[in-house]
Amino acid sequence: MEFEQQALNRVRRIPERGQYDQATIYAIIDAALLCHVAFAVDGQPFVIPTIHARMGDELILHGAKASRLLKHIEAGHPVSVAITLLDGLVMARSVFHSSMNYRSVVLFGHGRTLQTNDEKMAALACLTEHLARGRWQDARLPTAQELNATTVVALSIASASAKARSGPPNDEPEDYALPIWAGVLPLQQAALPPVPDPQLTPGLDAPDYLVHYRRQG
Amino acid sequence: MEFEQQALNRVRRIPERGQYDQATIYAIIDAALLCHVAFAVDGQPFVIPTIHARMGDELILHGAKASRLLKHIEAGHPVSVAITLLDGLVMARSVFHSSMNYRSVVLFGHGRTLQTNDEKMAALACLTEHLARGRWQDARLPTAQELNATTVVALSIASASAKARSGPPNDEPEDYALPIWAGVLPLQQAALPPVPDPQLTPGLDAPDYLVHYRRQG
Repeated sequence: MEFEQQALNRVRRIPERGQYDQATIYAIIDAALLCHVAFAVDGQPFVIPTIHARMGDELILHGAKASRLLKHIEAGHPVSVAITLLDGLVMARSVFHSSMNYRSVVLFGHGRTLQTNDEKMAALACLTEHLARGRWQDARLPTAQELNATTVVALSIASASAKARSGPPNDEPEDYALPIWAGVLPLQQAALPPVPDPQLTPGLDAPDYLVHYRRQG
Repeated sequence: MEFEQQALNRVRRIPERGQYDQATIYAIIDAALLCHVAFAVDGQPFVIPTIHARMGDELILHGAKASRLLKHIEAGHPVSVAITLLDGLVMARSVFHSSMNYRSVVLFGHGRTLQTNDEKMAALACLTEHLARGRWQDARLPTAQELNATTVVALSIASASAKARSGPPNDEPEDYALPIWAGVLPLQQAALPPVPDPQLTPGLDAPDYLVHYRRQG
C-alpha cells in the first residue's frame, strides 16, 4: 500500500529521497523510541517530544489528562508528527556536500480519544511493548484509577511520507582527487547494561529483553 | 542567566522537571546532533528534522534556497524548535510509572536571514564544527556559488525551557515489594568506526576527531 502524494505529504526538497510505501513508513515508526508532535494555537507553532507506538494503522500517544497537547488533539485539531532515526554523519570532501544519513517519517492526522478501558489497555500494552517487548506481561498493570488519569489518543495516519539518505558522500567530480578524508561516521542508539533500582528486592535478575535489548530495524 | 517564565515557555506538565537557566539549555542544544522545527501555515502544523548549531545566543539553521521552512522563517513567521536527548528507558514496577530519562529543550523565536558571505561562512563553520570538531579546517570550504545556493537563518532564542528526567523509577510505595525487576536501561548514541568512501584516495587515514568521536554532554 502507498500513501497518496498530496500537497501535505509530498517530499519537496530532494524529492528522490521521498518514499510513500506503507511498509517503509511503518518500519521507521516501529524502530524509533520517540516522536516529535507539532501543533498550532492561533498561528503559534509548538513541538513536543513524546513516546509513541503504532497500533495497526493508527499512532498511539498518551499522557496525563491535563496535557495541553492531548486536549488540543481531543478538540479535533490537526497535528503533524516527525519520527527521525539518525544513522550517521556524512563527511564529504566539501562542506557543501556534507550531510547526515537518516530515516525519517512525517505524518499528518487527526486524533480520536480512546473511551473504554479495554481500548485504553490495548493501546497501553502496545506502547509498553513498543519500548521493551515482553514488559507488559511482567509489569504491574494499570488500575482503573490510573486508567482514568491517563488520556490515550489514536491518530489516524491519513497522510505520510518517509525520507531517507544512506551511503557514502556525493562529492563534486573535481573534489575526489583532493587529499581530504571522506566517508561516513555510523551512529547508533546503543543500550548499556540495565541499572537496577537501588530499592530493588534482592534476588531479582534483569529480564532478557533488557539484558539483550535490541530494536527492530 | 535565566529565561523568563512566560506563557509560551512555561513547563506545564510536571513543572518540577522544568529548568530555565541558560547554561542547562545551551548544554542540551550543543550536545544534540539534530533538532525538530515546527511551523504553521494557515493553522496546519508542520514539523521537520534538521541540523542545527548554536552561535552565541542564536540557533543556526540552513538549507537550500528553495526550502519551504527557510522561506517561512525568512517571511518573519514564528517557529518552535525541540531538541531531545534520550538517556534511558525507565522500567518501573508499574506500567503507570514507567517513563524515559531524557534532556530536552523547547525554544521559540523568529529568524533573520544571514546576508553577507562572511556571516554565512561563520555560521557554516559553526554548523560543521558542531557535528565534528576539527572538520572545518580539513574540508573544502564553500565557494561563492555554493554560498549563494544556501540559505542560512539565525533564530533569536527569545524564549526557552528545558525539561529533564534522570534516575531510577518512582513507584507507588506498595509496589516496591512486588517481585518485578525495576531499574533503568541506559541508552546512548554511539559512534562506530568511520567507514571510508569507496572512492577515497589511497593513503588517507580517518582523522582523530572521527576515530575518537565524542560529543560534549
